[in-house]
Amino acid sequence: MALRTGDQYAEKLTKMQPNVYVGGRKITRDDELLQPAINTIKFTFAAATDPEFSEMACAKSHLTGETISRFTHVHRSIEDLMVKQEMTRVLCRKVGGCIQRCMAADALNGVGVVSKEIDDAKGTNYHDNFLKFLEYYQKNDVVGNAAQTDVKGDRSKRPHQQEDLDLYLRVVERKSDGIVVRGAKAHNTIAPYADELIVLPTRNLTKEEGDWAVAFAIPADTEGVKLICRVSAPRQRRELKAPFNTYGMADSMTVFDDVFVPWERVFMCGEWELGARLALLFANYHRHTYCGCKPAVTDIIMGATALLAEYNGVGNASHIREEISELMVIAELVFAAGIAASVKGKATSSGIYEPDFLYSNTGRYLAGKNIYHEYDIMAATAGGLPATIPPEDDFLNPEISEYLHKYIMRKPDVSSEKVHRLFRFVSDFSCSAFGGVNQYAGVHGGGSPIMEKIGIRANYDLEARKDMVKYLAGITD
Amino acid sequence: MALRTGDQYAEKLTKMQPNVYVGGRKITRDDELLQPAINTIKFTFAAATDPEFSEMACAKSHLTGETISRFTHVHRSIEDLMVKQEMTRVLCRKVGGCIQRCMAADALNGVGVVSKEIDDAKGTNYHDNFLKFLEYYQKNDVVGNAAQTDVKGDRSKRPHQQEDLDLYLRVVERKSDGIVVRGAKAHNTIAPYADELIVLPTRNLTKEEGDWAVAFAIPADTEGVKLICRVSAPRQRRELKAPFNTYGMADSMTVFDDVFVPWERVFMCGEWELGARLALLFANYHRHTYCGCKPAVTDIIMGATALLAEYNGVGNASHIREEISELMVIAELVFAAGIAASVKGKATSSGIYEPDFLYSNTGRYLAGKNIYHEYDIMAATAGGLPATIPPEDDFLNPEISEYLHKYIMRKPDVSSEKVHRLFRFVSDFSCSAFGGVNQYAGVHGGGSPIMEKIGIRANYDLEARKDMVKYLAGITD
Amino acid sequence: MALRTGDQYAEKLTKMQPNVYVGGRKITRDDELLQPAINTIKFTFAAATDPEFSEMACAKSHLTGETISRFTHVHRSIEDLMVKQEMTRVLCRKVGGCIQRCMAADALNGVGVVSKEIDDAKGTNYHDNFLKFLEYYQKNDVVGNAAQTDVKGDRSKRPHQQEDLDLYLRVVERKSDGIVVRGAKAHNTIAPYADELIVLPTRNLTKEEGDWAVAFAIPADTEGVKLICRVSAPRQRRELKAPFNTYGMADSMTVFDDVFVPWERVFMCGEWELGARLALLFANYHRHTYCGCKPAVTDIIMGATALLAEYNGVGNASHIREEISELMVIAELVFAAGIAASVKGKATSSGIYEPDFLYSNTGRYLAGKNIYHEYDIMAATAGGLPATIPPEDDFLNPEISEYLHKYIMRKPDVSSEKVHRLFRFVSDFSCSAFGGVNQYAGVHGGGSPIMEKIGIRANYDLEARKDMVKYLAGITD
Amino acid sequence: MALRTGDQYAEKLTKMQPNVYVGGRKITRDDELLQPAINTIKFTFAAATDPEFSEMACAKSHLTGETISRFTHVHRSIEDLMVKQEMTRVLCRKVGGCIQRCMAADALNGVGVVSKEIDDAKGTNYHDNFLKFLEYYQKNDVVGNAAQTDVKGDRSKRPHQQEDLDLYLRVVERKSDGIVVRGAKAHNTIAPYADELIVLPTRNLTKEEGDWAVAFAIPADTEGVKLICRVSAPRQRRELKAPFNTYGMADSMTVFDDVFVPWERVFMCGEWELGARLALLFANYHRHTYCGCKPAVTDIIMGATALLAEYNGVGNASHIREEISELMVIAELVFAAGIAASVKGKATSSGIYEPDFLYSNTGRYLAGKNIYHEYDIMAATAGGLPATIPPEDDFLNPEISEYLHKYIMRKPDVSSEKVHRLFRFVSDFSCSAFGGVNQYAGVHGGGSPIMEKIGIRANYDLEARKDMVKYLAGITD
Repeated sequence: MALRTGDQYAEKLTKMQPNVYVGGRKITRDDELLQPAINTIKFTFAAATDPEFSEMACAKSHLTGETISRFTHVHRSIEDLMVKQEMTRVLCRKVGGCIQRCMAADALNGVGVVSKEIDDAKGTNYHDNFLKFLEYYQKNDVVGNAAQTDVKGDRSKRPHQQEDLDLYLRVVERKSDGIVVRGAKAHNTIAPYADELIVLPTRNLTKEEGDWAVAFAIPADTEGVKLICRVSAPRQRRELKAPFNTYGMADSMTVFDDVFVPWERVFMCGEWELGARLALLFANYHRHTYCGCKPAVTDIIMGATALLAEYNGVGNASHIREEISELMVIAELVFAAGIAASVKGKATSSGIYEPDFLYSNTGRYLAGKNIYHEYDIMAATAGGLPATIPPEDDFLNPEISEYLHKYIMRKPDVSSEKVHRLFRFVSDFSCSAFGGVNQYAGVHGGGSPIMEKIGIRANYDLEARKDMVKYLAGITD
Repeated sequence: MALRTGDQYAEKLTKMQPNVYVGGRKITRDDELLQPAINTIKFTFAAATDPEFSEMACAKSHLTGETISRFTHVHRSIEDLMVKQEMTRVLCRKVGGCIQRCMAADALNGVGVVSKEIDDAKGTNYHDNFLKFLEYYQKNDVVGNAAQTDVKGDRSKRPHQQEDLDLYLRVVERKSDGIVVRGAKAHNTIAPYADELIVLPTRNLTKEEGDWAVAFAIPADTEGVKLICRVSAPRQRRELKAPFNTYGMADSMTVFDDVFVPWERVFMCGEWELGARLALLFANYHRHTYCGCKPAVTDIIMGATALLAEYNGVGNASHIREEISELMVIAELVFAAGIAASVKGKATSSGIYEPDFLYSNTGRYLAGKNIYHEYDIMAATAGGLPATIPPEDDFLNPEISEYLHKYIMRKPDVSSEKVHRLFRFVSDFSCSAFGGVNQYAGVHGGGSPIMEKIGIRANYDLEARKDMVKYLAGITD
Repeated sequence: MALRTGDQYAEKLTKMQPNVYVGGRKITRDDELLQPAINTIKFTFAAATDPEFSEMACAKSHLTGETISRFTHVHRSIEDLMVKQEMTRVLCRKVGGCIQRCMAADALNGVGVVSKEIDDAKGTNYHDNFLKFLEYYQKNDVVGNAAQTDVKGDRSKRPHQQEDLDLYLRVVERKSDGIVVRGAKAHNTIAPYADELIVLPTRNLTKEEGDWAVAFAIPADTEGVKLICRVSAPRQRRELKAPFNTYGMADSMTVFDDVFVPWERVFMCGEWELGARLALLFANYHRHTYCGCKPAVTDIIMGATALLAEYNGVGNASHIREEISELMVIAELVFAAGIAASVKGKATSSGIYEPDFLYSNTGRYLAGKNIYHEYDIMAATAGGLPATIPPEDDFLNPEISEYLHKYIMRKPDVSSEKVHRLFRFVSDFSCSAFGGVNQYAGVHGGGSPIMEKIGIRANYDLEARKDMVKYLAGITD
Repeated sequence: MALRTGDQYAEKLTKMQPNVYVGGRKITRDDELLQPAINTIKFTFAAATDPEFSEMACAKSHLTGETISRFTHVHRSIEDLMVKQEMTRVLCRKVGGCIQRCMAADALNGVGVVSKEIDDAKGTNYHDNFLKFLEYYQKNDVVGNAAQTDVKGDRSKRPHQQEDLDLYLRVVERKSDGIVVRGAKAHNTIAPYADELIVLPTRNLTKEEGDWAVAFAIPADTEGVKLICRVSAPRQRRELKAPFNTYGMADSMTVFDDVFVPWERVFMCGEWELGARLALLFANYHRHTYCGCKPAVTDIIMGATALLAEYNGVGNASHIREEISELMVIAELVFAAGIAASVKGKATSSGIYEPDFLYSNTGRYLAGKNIYHEYDIMAATAGGLPATIPPEDDFLNPEISEYLHKYIMRKPDVSSEKVHRLFRFVSDFSCSAFGGVNQYAGVHGGGSPIMEKIGIRANYDLEARKDMVKYLAGITD
């Protein structure tokens, strides 16, 4: 059984070179600022051996036959795709948001497929590199990130047209034993507390852009890597402890300042024709994953909305019931699109399954279009209290604590503590930097709605629909 | 092979007792007013032997092993559910709208499941009746309808509370050889040109309402049955012939004026406890079917919109591209929900599979909420011409025909005839009684969005979502 | 008092040269096909002397001091703008839709303003022509149309780039006594039963397009004019007479086959620089008018929805109440935008007031975006009956009439006739060619939402908003 | 001239009794935690004498003839209503959000009207109290709050049905020289740094609820008053100073622990019949004000969105242009509704004008429904950076500052500092507790959309709309 414990994971982090920057300081990876984020990852290790989750959360390695974390697995069947989606929903519910380890899994699957396709087309040897890396990854129950999004500079220009060529990460030197890369990847969730960084291109590339066609994996503390972070977590609690407030995340702008990558860790280097394939395939896996995690967010918003209504004594108000039904519809349409993407999934030449791009994009699109709307529904039901509830410290101040408990009461059979806990949860979930970050993540994580629309259009047989109408209207070309 | 031809079907209609009323007259079933509707049904017979469709459009009877029309089949697997949905989409595209024969198939499946469940619970013998009827239905490639919706009178009252007890169809007499029923079923598509009427309850029932718990099948020209119709079809063409304009439909208010039904054709009689089960199960099958037909309607609207833009010379206008993408999203979310409903489908005690109620409802809901929006998108792209295009007769008037052809021109490489054909199609599709009827059908057919929302809520584990939030917030009951 | 009666108006129509084509025939203007449309116009004459409406429906001529129809008036104040909007709403409610005579009034105002501006800029004499025409128009209580929209050919090309230069109406000859024009104007409501056609350009023009910069007024039966029509009216009734079904309209494609226009009827000829000004100014007036008529349509849809709910016995259902509130919001936001456009209106050099373009466009935009949504709300409340209700003829057939009356009953205290009347009204309003046409009119009449968005953007000080943010963010350029 | 300076205002605050609680501490009103909030109020004093704003920001007292702050004025005309709305928009733009002093002005207007109406009905003397208070308020350029919303307990119960009667503020004792009140008011923006609290009822009341029908004004540091606060302000800056980050607000739960109010400061006491009138009239004024402030928020979101697109090099992308147009439409419809409310405003018996309730509610409703949607538009254009941008401290860390500046670059002609400033502004505006609070304020401030819908329905003549349809359909009762 190739499973680590959360403590083993955290322990290993402490041994890494310090290259993480938070709030103006360079920190070591045991800094308390990273604890909420690390707690989320620890939960993924715990889930693997928790009977409630282990069936989903583990898989059997097709390389070694060993029991491994599903987060280190590649999809060998439609069933694998379906379980991945289901697991994502279930685990996200328990931490109240992003489970984070899916990103690297999605990157692995993408790199696995495309390294094989490059080899098939070019006679290269990338897929062997990949398989060796995968075996290492599975055996050591590695935590990886996916470093895809370049900082991108002027959005109206292509990579090779930027004034500063480093605005998309690129190869600056090819050596006998490896390559040297320079650039920066943005929005790198999990990177500051990951073991490995998995790097891949962000977009389609032209023949001038071979240097930008690069994919590889390296330890997160490799020389030349700098992780400049923004930590996001719910407000910490003094006494009103709650599971939600123990979790968190951090994103980094990950700078690659002439970083050396040995050849055995390179999965693409120069094959610009397959840049788009890899970029979109990762997107496909990741959008499919969103069809699992985003319904979990909706589950939480829905549960909070229903509980707010119940505690307020208006649990049966028809307008609230309608809004909650709206949340159900959103959650299940997104989830259904993920199921359809799985069911219509196909095996690639590597034996890895990819979900149907049209459906993974459609599901992610709907999720992205609705995240603010969902917060709106919760806010509308909550009333203004999540915005104006005095901080926990006031509830602990004996001079005024009694007033706060007296006046927060709603239905007589719900204690003031419960009301306090619920509204503070909603406040932390929505009237907080963390809430704002999650709104942005809901829009942009895995690709913005506008990107999915482009993806949907590109994969839709519109001509066939025109032909249907020509037939019905009696138009012959 | 138990397949009829369209001509055999039409020929049999001519032999039926005249009990169809259209436009103030009692007509025989070969009246030309019914021709467009009959053409649609004929197409379903043609499809069964057309290599393009036959694989989907046929199935193997589990009773006889014979090849039968899928419209006479009951679902024996998840695969059956998926093929039914796919077939529905494909066939609807070819007639430009409702394929109609699905309704009876959905009713058969519902009656098949529930007749068994009643027998299991009550020791009755309905399922044998059903199987005998099904065998007859399959062998003779029968065209049936589903007569479900009662006229319902005062919507704030239950069936037994109505001032006129006939406002929901009911048993008025039980005899040794059969039962006598009275009432009327509304919105009965296909009934005026069907062989058989399949009747089932419209809602949940209470113990006072045993007389309303009745399901049966009888020939459509049984004594006492009156079919009072509204025919809906695109405007007929004089010279500008087009496939779309050859099809149509008719709905009837079907009056049962003390109609005798022999016991062997009765599938439920008095078992009010299972009224809701049968009503909702038919709804479930039918909403699942909508997840196939409704995307076909969207396909047509999408194709027309794209073609309008192309002919107008604005095929690449970004705002139109966005709208078309919206249509893609709607079509595929509805379809995805249908797939999810199939994949999560379950076998019943009868061996017949039922789709997952939550997903069939979610898909149908989205379709119903968007039908007017889709017409809006098409209209916005079309401009005003579908509303003001002079009738075909003017195009045939030599005094003005040349003007019309001169001034209808758009892009020089698209002939005026093509432009004329497209805009007349769109006009017939949307600026017509037929278009209005299809908008209503899009909202209400198979159950209105409000009904689906109720269905979704009733089948959703909201308490589990509240519990997720209680856990995260640290609330213990 | 310069007011005609409806009969005087209709009488004059009979004396005009027959150049109207309907359904393949050339007809005279007393043809019964035009009667519903003519009835609508007759109502505008009746309203002028009806105490309920006359205060709004009349104005005092600033030329003669006489009492005139407000439909022949030009706006001399903000008050005039407000009363015009209010009157439009009130009168449209009474005919169940478009009151039609506003279009010419909007054209007159536009031509009045711009003819003066051309004279000011170019030293021409158009405004005198206008004033003489206006005096004639007022004295004779003339019914005019506004012929603006060209047929436009390839939408990606400008007028002078079309393969056929006539696809935008243009001057083909300039003579000493007048000009000769050729082309066709589309979607010309009221033209087939108007006294005069008022013609104006449809868009901005370039210096190559002087020939397309032309505005004038001529009698509708001038030689060379052909009015090829589509008549739109609710289904006619045999016995179940109702005001709604007595009204209607007709649109023509109006062909100008080398039509001579004397100079005294020309208001612009060659001044391409002011083409956009006139096109947009007419649009401005007409969109402002829409802020009156469109709320009337919403009033009717709202009233029908509320009555449907009441008769069905679900008048207090919360989801229907919410939908009706939505209709209230739409109606009043559109109306409020019209008020704001009036209040922010400004006098032009001619002394005529123009409404604020931003607000007239914003109001019209919202109306255009919602028309299908409003039909949706009505349909959702109505249920399927408007789509499947058998024709009036069946209700008159003694063999089945009793069944229909028995089974259409809803609440016991609402007679079957009332229910019949209401559902037939809703069916005629929405499940009819007339309904489809009104949906298109709701989207495109007065300019499509996309045109209003363009208008809004063009008139919005976005730079000022950027500057606000620069200030707040501390960005100095 | 009765105008104070900001410093005079702040100076006076320091002399007040400390009864403000923030973050677990009791503070004095010169605590730095309150500075951002106080800065906003100071700006209102500065505006009164700033030539850019003074014409709007000042008014002439109808009591003394002196020049006073418009925030201390009551509306004596339609013009006053219009200027108030316009001023609100203009001033809110400068502080990047709520200008706060409007609330007390709205309360004053409400109390002014209703105190007169009570006197008229009951022969009481409240209006004199009001006028004396108003004169004091104007002469001293007072800063007031409006304490309306009770904490409300069980929302399914009325005030007198609550288990704890104090859950709505009430009179617990009537004395010869005044009254004693107990309870708490929630969401009291400005209260912790206001001179005076103006208290009024939150809802309609029944005859059992005379004790809850109470309105009065008292100094904010009156004995028994406790202000338990939540401070909301953008993150403070170390070096990257920006106006936006200097402003803020604080809300309090204001506890009245048996507070004595002298009779001359009481404006209502026991007249439950007018409770609803006063509650709704304040709501009316405040919703009208929202028709000014909310468009300012949209202005800022719009400007930020446009600037983000510009800096990103996609300023002309069509999908962004469409979204910005959407923001324009929202802003101007809300503003138009405010104009309509002013224009349709009416004088009350006190001589004070009240805006039209239907339009003020319609405008506020639209604003409340769209606030999350607007944040969504901004976020969609911004991309993920506002969520992941490292804190200012990292930009000040010389070890990594250069990387951050290098990789934040977008268009080459926009400096990294400008990009940094813009994205930090957007991050502070939306990925912050302050942003979340403003979302809630946008939904609930001045009354939630659901409250406005109720208000709209209650004031809408739906019966008249039914009658229109009855007429058109030929239904006679």
